Amino acid sequence: MTAPVPADVLSRLKAVLGEGGWSQDPERLAPKLVEWRDRWTGETPFLALPKTTAEVSAVVGICFEAGVPITPQGGNTGLVGGQIPQGEILLSTERLRRVRDVDAFDDVLVVEAGVTLAAVHEAAAEKGRRFPLSLASEGTATIGGVVSTNAGGTQVLRYGTTRDLVLGLEAVLPNGEVWNGLKRLRKDNTGYDLKHLLIGAEGTLGVVTAASLKLFPILASRATAIAAVDDPAAAIRLLVRAKDEAGGAVEAFELMGRRGVEFVLKNIPDQRDPLSAPHPWYVLVEIASGEPGAAQAAMERLLARGLEDGLVRDAALAQSQAQAKALWSIREHQSAGQKPEGATWKHDVSVPVSRVADFIEEATAAVEAMVPGCRVTAFGHVGDGNIHYDVIRPEGAEDAPHAARRSEGSRVVHDIVARMGGSISAEHGLGVMKSEEARRYKSPAEVAALVAIRQSLDPKRIMNPRVLF
Amino acid sequence: MTAPVPADVLSRLKAVLGEGGWSQDPERLAPKLVEWRDRWTGETPFLALPKTTAEVSAVVGICFEAGVPITPQGGNTGLVGGQIPQGEILLSTERLRRVRDVDAFDDVLVVEAGVTLAAVHEAAAEKGRRFPLSLASEGTATIGGVVSTNAGGTQVLRYGTTRDLVLGLEAVLPNGEVWNGLKRLRKDNTGYDLKHLLIGAEGTLGVVTAASLKLFPILASRATAIAAVDDPAAAIRLLVRAKDEAGGAVEAFELMGRRGVEFVLKNIPDQRDPLSAPHPWYVLVEIASGEPGAAQAAMERLLARGLEDGLVRDAALAQSQAQAKALWSIREHQSAGQKPEGATWKHDVSVPVSRVADFIEEATAAVEAMVPGCRVTAFGHVGDGNIHYDVIRPEGAEDAPHAARRSEGSRVVHDIVARMGGSISAEHGLGVMKSEEARRYKSPAEVAALVAIRQSLDPKRIMNPRVLF
Repeated sequence: MTAPVPADVLSRLKAVLGEGGWSQDPERLAPKLVEWRDRWTGETPFLALPKTTAEVSAVVGICFEAGVPITPQGGNTGLVGGQIPQGEILLSTERLRRVRDVDAFDDVLVVEAGVTLAAVHEAAAEKGRRFPLSLASEGTATIGGVVSTNAGGTQVLRYGTTRDLVLGLEAVLPNGEVWNGLKRLRKDNTGYDLKHLLIGAEGTLGVVTAASLKLFPILASRATAIAAVDDPAAAIRLLVRAKDEAGGAVEAFELMGRRGVEFVLKNIPDQRDPLSAPHPWYVLVEIASGEPGAAQAAMERLLARGLEDGLVRDAALAQSQAQAKALWSIREHQSAGQKPEGATWKHDVSVPVSRVADFIEEATAAVEAMVPGCRVTAFGHVGDGNIHYDVIRPEGAEDAPHAARRSEGSRVVHDIVARMGGSISAEHGLGVMKSEEARRYKSPAEVAALVAIRQSLDPKRIMNPRVLF
Repeated sequence: MTAPVPADVLSRLKAVLGEGGWSQDPERLAPKLVEWRDRWTGETPFLALPKTTAEVSAVVGICFEAGVPITPQGGNTGLVGGQIPQGEILLSTERLRRVRDVDAFDDVLVVEAGVTLAAVHEAAAEKGRRFPLSLASEGTATIGGVVSTNAGGTQVLRYGTTRDLVLGLEAVLPNGEVWNGLKRLRKDNTGYDLKHLLIGAEGTLGVVTAASLKLFPILASRATAIAAVDDPAAAIRLLVRAKDEAGGAVEAFELMGRRGVEFVLKNIPDQRDPLSAPHPWYVLVEIASGEPGAAQAAMERLLARGLEDGLVRDAALAQSQAQAKALWSIREHQSAGQKPEGATWKHDVSVPVSRVADFIEEATAAVEAMVPGCRVTAFGHVGDGNIHYDVIRPEGAEDAPHAARRSEGSRVVHDIVARMGGSISAEHGLGVMKSEEARRYKSPAEVAALVAIRQSLDPKRIMNPRVLF
């Protein structure tokens, strides 16, 4: 727990923020101190609610001078505890919510940190454009958080992670100075790219206050299908074919195992089994093209060839938006669907695409040896090599013993990932959950460089001090 | 000029590099000490020619310990003098030339720094894949240089700059330690992304020794056309239409003025005027799609609609690869074509796409007022807002007086760029040519952050010390 905040710092913060700009009311604070899965709860002496970049700058400047630590928070949808304060000042971006500009000529949208991802989608759509970052939590997740964690989601295969979608940033650096890097340029080679350092820094190098984001055309044709395959290796072979068949037009390629699909059917209302008979593995494929009809044509070729040579065992091509939505619903409820099944070790890992099948096989053998009867679900963005690999307690067993072995189990899974040249956090970040663990898999040379960079911008380590290195 | 290198450092370097691993022969050194346009010439006491990453590490480690500065050099095609030593040790990557791996499953290619871009294209093509970075100098430019300068080129509109095409890096940090970040992951959120700090760092944060690069499918259909338009504003309107019409499939959208085209016709052999009558401005458009026939269909719709409503004055759609090549030849010779016309102020700038026409108009009025009769050529990647804006001396005038006013003229152009939220170096980098100038357009907060980061990784400032901040 962090040292108490001196009273004079609190009164200076109250003065710069003004009425409505801060809170110490336990009821107002409560929802910001609990992670939504109840894995972390926190505390804070003071909630700062700045309304402008200048106010953020004033708050950070006061804290920097006094050496008082800050935890920044966006929509509080993070999964690794990085947004939950443990005695730090809590700086919420919830009042930074202006859409500053949308320009269909420059294909750019400039928004403040507290705007939700769903609101960004709407603002883009109003101008006939699309912002292609898509997350289950998009109604709550905010741009500041999405940028600070380099969020991924389901469209990374074609559009990349948040990093690839940001043209410029405005941020308050740890010393309280405002960096205005809110450019809308596609090309700018004038020194180190500070923006890329802040993206994914999880609030440790400053507070992102606004971002300019790339917009894309709304594509004329879109095809969504589910295909049953024998195993993850077959899924990867189908992925390679899909990329060839559709050129750059594969938007999503998501793997699900039968067990995860069954949990959705059992635990989530109004879901339908996607194919007439059960199959061990499924991929949800989406192809989109600017050319009318092209997405459907490519999808039909892909499925026909797969059915013909047995790579695909069965398939359903959505015939309407409602059908496409129903297929996506099964994928999007994978996490929620397994929640009632009890204690789970969750992993958000990536490996080279070519190693996905090996990884699932090897990891599953290892955890089943550790906990006989445990139930593995593996799902995710297999087109990016990103697997959400979850290990649920045996059916009918107690939660506590399984939960107690989480670290031990994750170590086994992460060691396999590391041996395959993978990452122990593909998209969720490190937060407080994995920062220690990550040191194990980075070389001392890299950790030393990361620590030196942080120290150079935040010598008193006031920004989100318990997170990263 | 840098201080002389102590004799014991030279003998230690010779010992670790071994025979054939270094040179002090003036003839061997000469081609590496002259920039290809003859704007910079340099000198060095010692050329290091490491063959392995371990040798690079040993060289940098010795220099770090002794505080001896190093200039790294790749293919020596840089345009801003960053690769030309002025008394520093010259570290050439020319012997780091292994293609370590090409994997069509992972869509990745792993190459050492000294491999040329053209060799990368070939290695990708052998596996039925494409590496979409395309530069006029690709036969000579090497991957280490391309990464260190975040090279752009003609396909940025669709595929991004080098930054967007790199999955991982291996580099020797300024202290001589090897950072192995040679991952092949599409997603990895485990702390600051060191790779993005090294990309575009122009050799100031270490020596890139290898890179893993993203591969893409070879697209089934490709259409290339040239369209005549009245002015840059019309070109931008056509760009917006092209993006809508073709979805994400526009690969290149290049602007050229009539004057630049005429210089090519006059000064470069075997070039043809692309359309039957002259027009004030041209755009070269390339569309490519994974769907057979789709690129041609989209291009035909785009041109037909443009001709119908007068946005396009005339157009030619290439009917063969040879015709497409002939159109590209006019674009690629813009720089060479104007060279015989005499002294030129060259600018590699970007502005928001929506400001391209304003920029060309305003800058041209300003330089014509400065130098009556000067000849402006503006060409480049207008789809990215990147204009190569060149001001040639008046016809028949002397070179020297025009060359003498280069800094003064560039200041005028760069001030206009900055006012429009642009960049004074869109793709060439800062090198020794623009590093000082760039300080003028960055905030003190940003420069302080960049200097602090550099200091944190290279406290003795041994890596390319005259470059950047």
